[in-house]
Amino acid sequence: MIDLNSDLGEGFGAWTMGDDAALLDIVTSANIACGFHAGDPSIMRRTCALAVERGVRIGAHISYRDLAGFGRRAMAVSPRELADETLYQIGALDAFARAAGDRVRYVKPHGALYHSASADPAVADAVVSAIAEYGRLSVLGLPGSQLQAAAAAAGIPFHAEGFADRAYTPAATLVPRSEPGSVLDPEAALGQAVSIAVDGSTRSRDGAPVAVPARSLCVHGDSPGAVAMAEAIREALRAKGVELRAFA
Amino acid sequence: MIDLNSDLGEGFGAWTMGDDAALLDIVTSANIACGFHAGDPSIMRRTCALAVERGVRIGAHISYRDLAGFGRRAMAVSPRELADETLYQIGALDAFARAAGDRVRYVKPHGALYHSASADPAVADAVVSAIAEYGRLSVLGLPGSQLQAAAAAAGIPFHAEGFADRAYTPAATLVPRSEPGSVLDPEAALGQAVSIAVDGSTRSRDGAPVAVPARSLCVHGDSPGAVAMAEAIREALRAKGVELRAFA
Amino acid sequence: MIDLNSDLGEGFGAWTMGDDAALLDIVTSANIACGFHAGDPSIMRRTCALAVERGVRIGAHISYRDLAGFGRRAMAVSPRELADETLYQIGALDAFARAAGDRVRYVKPHGALYHSASADPAVADAVVSAIAEYGRLSVLGLPGSQLQAAAAAAGIPFHAEGFADRAYTPAATLVPRSEPGSVLDPEAALGQAVSIAVDGSTRSRDGAPVAVPARSLCVHGDSPGAVAMAEAIREALRAKGVELRAFA
Amino acid sequence: MIDLNSDLGEGFGAWTMGDDAALLDIVTSANIACGFHAGDPSIMRRTCALAVERGVRIGAHISYRDLAGFGRRAMAVSPRELADETLYQIGALDAFARAAGDRVRYVKPHGALYHSASADPAVADAVVSAIAEYGRLSVLGLPGSQLQAAAAAAGIPFHAEGFADRAYTPAATLVPRSEPGSVLDPEAALGQAVSIAVDGSTRSRDGAPVAVPARSLCVHGDSPGAVAMAEAIREALRAKGVELRAFA
Repeated sequence: MIDLNSDLGEGFGAWTMGDDAALLDIVTSANIACGFHAGDPSIMRRTCALAVERGVRIGAHISYRDLAGFGRRAMAVSPRELADETLYQIGALDAFARAAGDRVRYVKPHGALYHSASADPAVADAVVSAIAEYGRLSVLGLPGSQLQAAAAAAGIPFHAEGFADRAYTPAATLVPRSEPGSVLDPEAALGQAVSIAVDGSTRSRDGAPVAVPARSLCVHGDSPGAVAMAEAIREALRAKGVELRAFA
Repeated sequence: MIDLNSDLGEGFGAWTMGDDAALLDIVTSANIACGFHAGDPSIMRRTCALAVERGVRIGAHISYRDLAGFGRRAMAVSPRELADETLYQIGALDAFARAAGDRVRYVKPHGALYHSASADPAVADAVVSAIAEYGRLSVLGLPGSQLQAAAAAAGIPFHAEGFADRAYTPAATLVPRSEPGSVLDPEAALGQAVSIAVDGSTRSRDGAPVAVPARSLCVHGDSPGAVAMAEAIREALRAKGVELRAFA
Repeated sequence: MIDLNSDLGEGFGAWTMGDDAALLDIVTSANIACGFHAGDPSIMRRTCALAVERGVRIGAHISYRDLAGFGRRAMAVSPRELADETLYQIGALDAFARAAGDRVRYVKPHGALYHSASADPAVADAVVSAIAEYGRLSVLGLPGSQLQAAAAAAGIPFHAEGFADRAYTPAATLVPRSEPGSVLDPEAALGQAVSIAVDGSTRSRDGAPVAVPARSLCVHGDSPGAVAMAEAIREALRAKGVELRAFA
Repeated sequence: MIDLNSDLGEGFGAWTMGDDAALLDIVTSANIACGFHAGDPSIMRRTCALAVERGVRIGAHISYRDLAGFGRRAMAVSPRELADETLYQIGALDAFARAAGDRVRYVKPHGALYHSASADPAVADAVVSAIAEYGRLSVLGLPGSQLQAAAAAAGIPFHAEGFADRAYTPAATLVPRSEPGSVLDPEAALGQAVSIAVDGSTRSRDGAPVAVPARSLCVHGDSPGAVAMAEAIREALRAKGVELRAFA
């Protein structure tokens, strides 16, 4: 049994990104942008409504406040401000989740915040403190990360995710995109998806076995090829008898 | 018995506006900015916490998305988008109200949106539709306005407000600020505050009696003089035996 | 002889819009977004560099400050503020035009500002006052508009534009998009483009002859079909012996 | 002979900051915000006009794009984007400087960008590359900084600034604000201002002599006390026979 999650609702105003409708037919969990790196109120409403209609779990894809940089640029935001920005985003998205008949179920940091919340305990604690304040939420992130540690310390459920198309280091971290071989070709990605889902492990770029104890797999949808890839992963998992089911 | 309401939390980032702490000792209802014309997550948290601490009711002071214009410029936002922007702002503020131990209790449109929601049925309906969706909220606005009509049609409690320091026309609307005599001097404002609270009426600029069936009086706090004025109004009301109590 | 103009550089951050590279092979004038409705500094640099490389004239596509609404929503901005916002946008774009080896040559209002500057003399005057202040610029807009009158009053060159694919009323204004028949099919658009370029006239939706004294034709490029349309217009004009040349 | 510089035009929309009019009677150079951390087009116009009226030099106070954080939060902006954002801001401000009858004469980075451009060669090079592109500008910054080195490498005039009220380390860097004794009391600040202006040196927090080869002194004006301090510094300098004159 595994969950498939994807980043959705990442347009803004007149701009679109990715094929949300196609992805929502594939995934079981939707990380929905909350207006800080992408997403506006109308997109948030529409994406929540579509997710509920198709039985997909809603998660808040929180970010640094950086529309111009799509949340991909690290920012030295103080822990206190970061907790406040996290709470703001969760509350805003939850209004649309409720209007659609469900609730926000989990939180996943986006982009630069994903990286800093994985590596920096102060950032992880700030994000988790707001999640705890809001209540009834779980956290989705990197296994072994500071975010996982912070969630554990706060008594909040944490769900670990793996990546189908990203190469792992022997230490179970992702090979940075700037390095060669960081992104797997489609065939290798399919294999890694199945291996993580079935065995809870894969092989590092150097061939060493790596444990990836993931309850969810992250798939991307911002290109036509990516949607086909996500579909292929879903079918490969089903062929192996893996049930796709949301974690929350 | 009457309520005193004021606009609060209207700083942004490094910028401040008004003396929120002083006002929160005077008013019974706080219209708190939600980030669209003013207010950022940290200010929202702080203002909600202070309000709860002092027993002041929290309202969402929703606005057009216009930080550069402080929400004072009319914008041709479609009803659908406006409903979405309203829901976003309510949800965001409610997260801080809940973190402080209370909830958002009512909604009051700000600035240009206050005017358009008073005069334009489509705008009023859009705002009220989002308020109804969120649930458990009432509306604060101008008596006889389209906003009141929309709230009535939706079955949502509406609280009418009066203005101490603004001149009324014989039709019970406010004399536009661009016209001479639109703003009363402190002594006249005190008299009008008491008259509205005790008798539910005042005199128009031309001396005609005008019914102002207000459950709340709006006071401003963005200057030291304004705070003193608000205090004087509170004392004058008490001297007349008027109880100050939130409407919600 | 006629000019072809198109709206370019309308992405923002991670978001793209239209096929700028394809359009820049077709048009002779580029209306480049300045960051208020679309466009960021990196997109502005890139678009200016491409335009200069291909000998396309650079114009400032100024807008209301409204990224969330793509500049399509009317805003009640005071004339003084509007003049200031216009000057800001022209100066910012000119820095990139100069870095690319040219200068901003003209100004065209975008979206809601195009409409208000066409119809409202105060808006037209505000925009033109900033254009005059900056110096060495001309204006592109609707023939017979308030913008044309304001430019004439200020002694600034005005270039009139026509639309290939939009139906005209007998009064030579555009049929609003909300009405049936407002957008012409490709064949009719081709015919209208040639008719405006060769004869300076077309037929209204009702068949009446309408003078359209245009020195430029506006073509759109925000879809693959639109690029093909723009190419077809260019070829049809050439086949009729119309020379494509920028107006500035 | 020394220059006095101050950060000006740091309001935004309805929000104000500091007493620009008072400061412009004291300083010889004005670092004017360009809309990225503070400043809007109307404030930029007004501040440029006042500066020209009083014979104060205009500099572009460029920043990371961060209104919510007032430009005080470090951001991982790529050098290429940073150069583009720098050019955008200079061009925008120069339009108002020209409208007021002068030009932007120099550039000084603000807040977090000041720190990163002082310490990080890639950031310094990016900022300087845009300054060089625009032409006819000099740079104001910390003596011995990477910004100075980048300006030298690009052949652009660099003016070093000292701080009256900040304690120096023996290495001639500023004692971080987080450390005790980082900010001098008014009397010590006056003494340091004179010492830097007359002798080009001061004493570090530990009493060691420190060379501060400054052509300009930075004074702040965001509080009534700060304005009085700036006036006191000006008078103390004049009493010592130091001429106040802009560097450009």
